[in-house]
Amino acid sequence: MSNTHIYKNSLKSKIVVGVDVGGTNIHLGLINPRGTIIARTHLVTKSCSCNKKELIRGIVERIKILLSENKYPLQSVAGIGIGLPGLIDPRKGLVKFLPNIPGWKDVPLKKILQEKTRLKTFLENDVNLITLGEWCFGAGAGVQNMICMTLGTGVGGGFILDGHLYRGEGFAAGEIGHIPINEEGPRCNCGGYGCLERTVGNRYLLQKISQIFKKKMSLEDVYLLAQKGNRKALRFWEETATHIGNGLTGVVNILNPPRIVIGGGVANAHTFLFKTIEKTIRKRAMRVQGKMFRIVKARLGNDAGLIGARVLVLEELKARA
Amino acid sequence: MSNTHIYKNSLKSKIVVGVDVGGTNIHLGLINPRGTIIARTHLVTKSCSCNKKELIRGIVERIKILLSENKYPLQSVAGIGIGLPGLIDPRKGLVKFLPNIPGWKDVPLKKILQEKTRLKTFLENDVNLITLGEWCFGAGAGVQNMICMTLGTGVGGGFILDGHLYRGEGFAAGEIGHIPINEEGPRCNCGGYGCLERTVGNRYLLQKISQIFKKKMSLEDVYLLAQKGNRKALRFWEETATHIGNGLTGVVNILNPPRIVIGGGVANAHTFLFKTIEKTIRKRAMRVQGKMFRIVKARLGNDAGLIGARVLVLEELKARA
Repeated sequence: MSNTHIYKNSLKSKIVVGVDVGGTNIHLGLINPRGTIIARTHLVTKSCSCNKKELIRGIVERIKILLSENKYPLQSVAGIGIGLPGLIDPRKGLVKFLPNIPGWKDVPLKKILQEKTRLKTFLENDVNLITLGEWCFGAGAGVQNMICMTLGTGVGGGFILDGHLYRGEGFAAGEIGHIPINEEGPRCNCGGYGCLERTVGNRYLLQKISQIFKKKMSLEDVYLLAQKGNRKALRFWEETATHIGNGLTGVVNILNPPRIVIGGGVANAHTFLFKTIEKTIRKRAMRVQGKMFRIVKARLGNDAGLIGARVLVLEELKARA
Repeated sequence: MSNTHIYKNSLKSKIVVGVDVGGTNIHLGLINPRGTIIARTHLVTKSCSCNKKELIRGIVERIKILLSENKYPLQSVAGIGIGLPGLIDPRKGLVKFLPNIPGWKDVPLKKILQEKTRLKTFLENDVNLITLGEWCFGAGAGVQNMICMTLGTGVGGGFILDGHLYRGEGFAAGEIGHIPINEEGPRCNCGGYGCLERTVGNRYLLQKISQIFKKKMSLEDVYLLAQKGNRKALRFWEETATHIGNGLTGVVNILNPPRIVIGGGVANAHTFLFKTIEKTIRKRAMRVQGKMFRIVKARLGNDAGLIGARVLVLEELKARA
């Protein structure tokens, strides 16, 4: 047996099947050792009426087709990494609860997929997968500590601490959107008060926009207005960035990260956001922490979760080896 | 060579020299494998006029006396663990900066102490040492994730995450006192605004007390008043606890710890603090995170740092083995 042959069969050289489950679509892809998605397909979540069995059958079918069409036998696959939008127990391989896909409660998805595909399978929360993807193949490459923040309807987060994904005792860590920025702030959906998400989550930004401009407008509209120099629009983005910076100041003070990666829809307005976020944190954070962080736009876009699936599978197999 | 002999010489069975440097006193002790301080001495920090060389000479002398008086030869000592109130670089063995002891900037204390004592030496921030002590021999025993909070003039913190002390990229992590609880809050000494410490640090609590009671009183006075059922005093503690709970809600949401250990002077009023802190967090934190944490009073008191020195030395030697 030649060395080349051994290399070809080594874990690192194998491909990974990534699955990114969202409320609307399920994206699937094959990810090579360079973190490139070499083949992809998708499934409309509601095509299965969110029916659990149908959804799982659909995912298994798509995985098999992806592998056979691209001529990857099972032994060339390191495993499956699957991200889901909710509370996941990666140790037990359970989907505990998905807030936006009904009927998923304590589903042993790891076991089910392993039996049906004969591939090692690892589950993870979707934002944690994005965090892993950006860390190894995106804007966080090379650091041991990183905060990943996703700005959208929800404001999510994931933490790489001392070179590992930090999940928390109940696998619920990372909820940057639910750091209170005002003790006396308005009630948040989560039950708390004055949470960051309650101010900079998309829904609240849109409410604020319709108050400012006296009509319904999209975030993109206000972005374009700001580009044209519209004062109200510029001020809207400055205020939004200041709130985000205030929320992140606490994270920076307690976790002392060198890098903060920001992604998600709202991050597309980065020209109007990032400088003010950075300025706010530098002004408000403690000396050491405030000096050493850097804010970077996420690089992998919608592919971050699929690419993160590769990182998850390799990290988990390495930890078990 | 008998097994007993090997055991006696194994790392775990050796003693550790602990040194806890404070602005007023320097405490030194010998800590046995059970985390018990079997001999102790101290040194008045200002007796050396905080002169760096004098201080180091004093520490080295006391270490030598402690060991010889108690008949511990060098080979029975695993090492020295030393905690200092400021920014420490444990990797390089540098005291970067001590805010309350002048003249300490980038001092290679590890190297100096190793040369003078011929014992392996490890430096750490003082609150991190307390955290390690409480984790292994105090109120955090048995958990893999723990938040330690010290309430006093400063409001400090230390984190055990996934079974390790988390230090942050610049060794400045854990600053729970500088989580902003109000974006628009008053300026804090750290340069930030609305920090938790700016509301519940001793100095600000005493200011508030003199406003409420129209005279100067100590925290203990107000504690005794509350015990007698004084309404103003009870309300003072309730408000203090609510602010602490609001600050900790962010920590609970992002780090999802099972245990929060609270120590320091103010924590002595725990009868009036802990229930309200807990109630506040349970009301405001997210479902999963809010269910699983428990607040516990620190158990080791002023000995936590010395006892933590043992944990530090053993953990560091284990990591290097």
